[in-house]
Amino acid sequence: MKHKSTIGNLPVYKPGKPVEEVKKELGLSEVIKLASNENPYGSSKLVGNAIQAELANLSIYPDGSAGELTADLAVHLGVQNDQIIFGAGSDEIIALIARAFLIQGDETIMADQTFSVYKSNADIEGAVSIEVPLVNGTHDLEGMLSKVSSKTKIIWVCNPNNPTGTIITEKELISFMDRVPSDVMVVLDEAYYEYVTDESYPETIPMMERYNNLVILRTFSKIYGLASLRIGYGIASSEVISLINQVREPFNTTRFGQVAARAALKDQDFVKACHDKNREGVTYLQNEFDRLGLHYFPSQGNFILVQIGRPAAEMFDILLRQGIIIRSGFQVYPDYIRVSVGTPEQNQAFIKALEHALTPERSEV
Amino acid sequence: MKHKSTIGNLPVYKPGKPVEEVKKELGLSEVIKLASNENPYGSSKLVGNAIQAELANLSIYPDGSAGELTADLAVHLGVQNDQIIFGAGSDEIIALIARAFLIQGDETIMADQTFSVYKSNADIEGAVSIEVPLVNGTHDLEGMLSKVSSKTKIIWVCNPNNPTGTIITEKELISFMDRVPSDVMVVLDEAYYEYVTDESYPETIPMMERYNNLVILRTFSKIYGLASLRIGYGIASSEVISLINQVREPFNTTRFGQVAARAALKDQDFVKACHDKNREGVTYLQNEFDRLGLHYFPSQGNFILVQIGRPAAEMFDILLRQGIIIRSGFQVYPDYIRVSVGTPEQNQAFIKALEHALTPERSEV
Repeated sequence: MKHKSTIGNLPVYKPGKPVEEVKKELGLSEVIKLASNENPYGSSKLVGNAIQAELANLSIYPDGSAGELTADLAVHLGVQNDQIIFGAGSDEIIALIARAFLIQGDETIMADQTFSVYKSNADIEGAVSIEVPLVNGTHDLEGMLSKVSSKTKIIWVCNPNNPTGTIITEKELISFMDRVPSDVMVVLDEAYYEYVTDESYPETIPMMERYNNLVILRTFSKIYGLASLRIGYGIASSEVISLINQVREPFNTTRFGQVAARAALKDQDFVKACHDKNREGVTYLQNEFDRLGLHYFPSQGNFILVQIGRPAAEMFDILLRQGIIIRSGFQVYPDYIRVSVGTPEQNQAFIKALEHALTPERSEV
Repeated sequence: MKHKSTIGNLPVYKPGKPVEEVKKELGLSEVIKLASNENPYGSSKLVGNAIQAELANLSIYPDGSAGELTADLAVHLGVQNDQIIFGAGSDEIIALIARAFLIQGDETIMADQTFSVYKSNADIEGAVSIEVPLVNGTHDLEGMLSKVSSKTKIIWVCNPNNPTGTIITEKELISFMDRVPSDVMVVLDEAYYEYVTDESYPETIPMMERYNNLVILRTFSKIYGLASLRIGYGIASSEVISLINQVREPFNTTRFGQVAARAALKDQDFVKACHDKNREGVTYLQNEFDRLGLHYFPSQGNFILVQIGRPAAEMFDILLRQGIIIRSGFQVYPDYIRVSVGTPEQNQAFIKALEHALTPERSEV
């Protein structure tokens, strides 16, 4: 049985190690996972109640169009219902966009160190990915523009960028969009949108009127704390949403994901509190990295990429044995690790373990 | 922005009307939905507890490989862990198979009236679907074999077939598999497997050793009563599963879907009870159709396709106004409706409404 030639050599996505697995493997009773940019404060209390209330409908298919959630979110965002599409995480929206728009020979442009799902989906469709080096950990929009050709179908921009946490500003984005050909789709992945504190960060939804080729991705997996339930979304023109819908399976999100997201959306106080506490955590970690003399990229997300001066896989193992899971394996930054911002206690435990690991005589354990 | 040429004219999947929507539209207080082949007895009581226990992990990503559920299911089925893949319903597995294996110009073979998701996914990939007419509502395996060419990549067999409920027997399947070229994948969709009572129905898992090109699809959406949570699975050789995994998003099922399925799997008494009650319902409905002189296809599923002697869309509307939702719109059977088997009370209410609708002087309402 002959498979698509494009899928033979795809790299396999390596998810963060689950806590239970690490506990079992290393015989640890306490493990702190700062590997998957999850919300350390959980989710709104309203969510649990919404899930309880939905238990009566376990055997009933979800509303395939997520009608009520769509209506709530449209009001929240100030867009029309038909400008929204939901997926099992925004990564499913990425897959759907690739499946709806990319064909063999198309080109897509992305940063050389960014969310890996753009490239894997372009690969599956047989499209060529042109990877433009980050400059100081930041998208090089001029460099990306210079790669646009008649074959370019999609430009992927992760803002804040995963894993560097850097942003492009509103001014930079407008200047970029003004020069991107109108038949080239720009996918702006704003999974960490709600964490941003920098005022130069673009408000992109109002830009959609001017740029019909803009697709925005956001998610309930991060600040809303619903990663378990897989619910993310895309915002675009109704024409583009309608085309992406053509390749969406009829029931791609769950009933529980839909009611949980509706409840979470209602609790903007929770979102605000997480935003503030995350910023405190970022500041604490960045100050500690300064103290330890470690380079890092100033982050607008809920994670920081920090240079630890040795192969990251080594540091991964050392920290793991101390019960702390971080993320390594960034090709462009082989001696950097990505750490999610946790609670103050988790952040302190991480710094303690890191400092211990960096002490020369102890790191040989 | 140019989309894939194949997706321009795809038919949009029309899901069963949600109960709440019908209540609102028609001002009805009681609505019975017999449109989506859901389990009228809900799901195992163990499931609710499992979901409660998982509420603490709302903000944590699922285990992308669904390790614990995979292990449980592998034992239950008597296969290896690496022979199983989970999806957001078995329809996601269909999409993944198409995305991994089909390219422009490939041919796939299916019945002319079967689950619509095979064709829509083949269409997206630019593969040609050869639709072989059912004979007496049953897959014509000889006819399908006669269509096999050097371009054939996949043959889709829905067993029991949706919407006719008919089955192909073990003997027929073996004779068929013996003659299908070994490089042609045969996808056996067994979504209704647990409802079958006919002893000639094939046990396909033991056949996988002999036929490496066999892929079996099953689901927790039907007899297990977990349609809300979107969790289905595919079983195949480890080589094929590994290839399908190449195009699976890392976190395509939810934490809640995984724990619910594990709990549901443990309660085989619930499954057995639903199996028995469904058979009683099928027998009741078939007897009533006999009494009313209506043709139907003898069903091994939890639904029956019955001929009502007028355009099905008309009957859909008449029944809807009486608060009963069924399924119409089967191209090959324009004067048949598909009704899901409900509880005894629901089945009686349906028969009463149907009989009322069939009475000539009343049907003009």
